[in-house]
Amino acid sequence: MLDKDCIFCKILRKEIPSEIVFEDEDLLGFKDANPQAPVHELFIPRIHIETINDVDREGAGLLGRLFVAAVERAKAVGLSEEGYRLVLNCGRGAGQTVFHIHLHLLGGRPLSWPPG
Amino acid sequence: MLDKDCIFCKILRKEIPSEIVFEDEDLLGFKDANPQAPVHELFIPRIHIETINDVDREGAGLLGRLFVAAVERAKAVGLSEEGYRLVLNCGRGAGQTVFHIHLHLLGGRPLSWPPG
Repeated sequence: MLDKDCIFCKILRKEIPSEIVFEDEDLLGFKDANPQAPVHELFIPRIHIETINDVDREGAGLLGRLFVAAVERAKAVGLSEEGYRLVLNCGRGAGQTVFHIHLHLLGGRPLSWPPG
Repeated sequence: MLDKDCIFCKILRKEIPSEIVFEDEDLLGFKDANPQAPVHELFIPRIHIETINDVDREGAGLLGRLFVAAVERAKAVGLSEEGYRLVLNCGRGAGQTVFHIHLHLLGGRPLSWPPG
């Protein structure tokens, strides 16, 4: 279920250190190594799925839980009132650099529009 | 389940016109009235939920289906290869202006980083 060369699979296997902020049976959350906001964390599934294109209706539950994990974390760090942005990139053209699905949680500063 | 004054509930009730791109029992997709990219569409649940803060683990399935609907639409308009970005704002500080959960699908142009 994990990929030998994927950097996020290496984080899941604890072969690469990360600042973990959330863990459950299916998901992991950790701080982005190149933060773009005071709070910038990534939430990933514990299985290697390259892009959101690979998620079908049967995978919707896992995807939903990924978002709820980020929401719970946003509340835990006190962002629920001031606000936060959740971003999921699909493909290089959208800025996806690691091909293991990851949801960005950004907050702690004003977030402008458009989102990139 | 709908709100009298919410503009997206009015779209759901077809009291306000919109360019609908996706419809199923639980969800509606339509073009953003202020597009920020060649493809800029919004996906909303057919029930009035103000922010993603109001979604708990029981609501994860609906949230997941919202994302899968946007993915299916991205594929249908030919964005799956070139890429696209999915964005969900929570709260005014993150740029949420309509308080009915809506997922942005953006694509058709390069998307810069950070996402706002």
